[in-house]
Amino acid sequence: MVKNITGKRDFIESLRGKKATFMLAMSNTDTANIEGITQAGIPGKIYLTPTLDAEFLTTGEVRSLEDIASTPKGVPTPALITRAVHLLKPFSNIELLNLGVEKLPEVKYFKIHDFDTKPSQSIKTGANIDAHELFQKGVEFGQNYTCKDDYIILAESVPSGTTTAKATALALGYECKDAFSSSFKNVPNDIRELTIEEALKNIPPHSDIFTILGNVSDNMIIFNAGFVLGLNNKIPLILAGGTQMACVLLVVNKILEVMQGEINASNLALATTSWIANDDKSDIKKLLEMCSFSINSHYADFNFSLSSHPALKLYDEGEAKEGVGAGGALVYGMLNALTKEEITKQVEEFLK
Amino acid sequence: MVKNITGKRDFIESLRGKKATFMLAMSNTDTANIEGITQAGIPGKIYLTPTLDAEFLTTGEVRSLEDIASTPKGVPTPALITRAVHLLKPFSNIELLNLGVEKLPEVKYFKIHDFDTKPSQSIKTGANIDAHELFQKGVEFGQNYTCKDDYIILAESVPSGTTTAKATALALGYECKDAFSSSFKNVPNDIRELTIEEALKNIPPHSDIFTILGNVSDNMIIFNAGFVLGLNNKIPLILAGGTQMACVLLVVNKILEVMQGEINASNLALATTSWIANDDKSDIKKLLEMCSFSINSHYADFNFSLSSHPALKLYDEGEAKEGVGAGGALVYGMLNALTKEEITKQVEEFLK
Repeated sequence: MVKNITGKRDFIESLRGKKATFMLAMSNTDTANIEGITQAGIPGKIYLTPTLDAEFLTTGEVRSLEDIASTPKGVPTPALITRAVHLLKPFSNIELLNLGVEKLPEVKYFKIHDFDTKPSQSIKTGANIDAHELFQKGVEFGQNYTCKDDYIILAESVPSGTTTAKATALALGYECKDAFSSSFKNVPNDIRELTIEEALKNIPPHSDIFTILGNVSDNMIIFNAGFVLGLNNKIPLILAGGTQMACVLLVVNKILEVMQGEINASNLALATTSWIANDDKSDIKKLLEMCSFSINSHYADFNFSLSSHPALKLYDEGEAKEGVGAGGALVYGMLNALTKEEITKQVEEFLK
Repeated sequence: MVKNITGKRDFIESLRGKKATFMLAMSNTDTANIEGITQAGIPGKIYLTPTLDAEFLTTGEVRSLEDIASTPKGVPTPALITRAVHLLKPFSNIELLNLGVEKLPEVKYFKIHDFDTKPSQSIKTGANIDAHELFQKGVEFGQNYTCKDDYIILAESVPSGTTTAKATALALGYECKDAFSSSFKNVPNDIRELTIEEALKNIPPHSDIFTILGNVSDNMIIFNAGFVLGLNNKIPLILAGGTQMACVLLVVNKILEVMQGEINASNLALATTSWIANDDKSDIKKLLEMCSFSINSHYADFNFSLSSHPALKLYDEGEAKEGVGAGGALVYGMLNALTKEEITKQVEEFLK
């Protein structure tokens, strides 16, 4: 079942039975190499996570490493959930957005859009992104994109992306200290907070919005803010993610404020997991309500209560929570009659 | 399983696995306010039934009232069946036809076609419909309609619609006294017959067909007769309903007779419920065989024998029977591999 976070259900209901293109925005930031800041991947090879996620999502195989990315605690990537949905009720199309990955996924036949962008540097010392240029690339991509399907599901795979998202929102002046999620159950607040503190110090006084973003944000957030604005409501779009996708909207909101622009968000929604929607350590609703435009947001009423697999039970205990569009994929699955039983069973298959 | 009433199964079989647009034609007639004539809704608020049906069908929520429409006896609207099918095997598209409702459904994102038509008056004193104009609107809509899907399922929600249908067929000279169905198990024949008797008296002698229709019919029947003719076989069309939809065909038949026209009905079928097809108080087969063209008609071999819910058992006892395209939706579901078990379970979910 699809449940509401903010707004109404009409838009998402209108997509029931319709065809979706699934887009995965991949990027790396050196922020992820700060020890202990993320568990989205294998220590020392965290940078491979978006690459492996893309490989597994599209082909069912991991190619750039011998095994699927899971954390030291053994939490498997949420790509398993997205892939399970794709097997049970295939997306009509999957496209990859290379927003600066160290290593391209080893896949053929799947469109990889390239934006001539490098991984960003650590926000601790300055991300060093040409944010205005990257934002413009997002705008142009949105303006020119033609979709063969009825709507787009836009997902992300960015290790340490919640840290850069939180830094971004704080740097833009949003009061959101406790609103951002983490892939950890017990958030390593010291490391994360210190990193963000350092990052905010790097921003020169009186910086414009793109200077701020270029210092403390990540490629996914900046590009997707442009993409949302460039798409300009012409194709229904579901932002499939948690607080990172909420941050994309906060950036959109701030850019509109600065430029005195407006957005028609009627063809836009955010879809995430129940682990994010019901997380007592973060508050996505609060983030979404900080936007001056109203946004429909939803979560899939799915968890692993039907599974006894210890790795999956970790999700219900608060690990991982979201990523690779897992929440949006689950919502898509539920709009297309997939059941909790079917999805659980399919995810369990991958772990055999 | 899809069973035959008249004709052959080739046309309906050719739609197996194909995509459908579901259209709900909504209208009110003051005839429904005659006390005891219909049980399609809440006494005093019968006029809201099409509005609530449309809201529930599209969004899963009723918005114009605190609860879903059910009769004083507790028979829930057949919209539950249609919605259940939509959840299990979504229609690709749902559109609403406003053929004169007191209150528009409170839904966004779903196309509501407006035809600038008011609810009709009671046939007891004259329905007062500009039937020729409304018929023309139906013709034009059919001529101009483009469908993104493979076929159209056309349903209706018109409280007291079987009374106006029976009056229509009788007024047009069809010998069909005992052929029309009712939403009641025990049809309140006195009220209904008296109403129809009065209605027929209002028709001036030597009236043309549109004068007759304007006096004793309803907006749904008149418009849809035009729609069928305007569509002119170019898109496969399933009339999803019982004797009211049969009456649409009788009107089509009479208009063709008067205008010495012909219809190619090869892309046309009627689909209804087993409660209608097997009703011993009405005879849809007889109505369909009164047409001078032959028509494929079918019913879904579905009942609530697998349920023990008392409200649903009332259907098997002869209450409600059809409406909101329940029969057509069930046929669509069966053409797409849904089982009786799945549909029953989903309908029961709504009543929890």
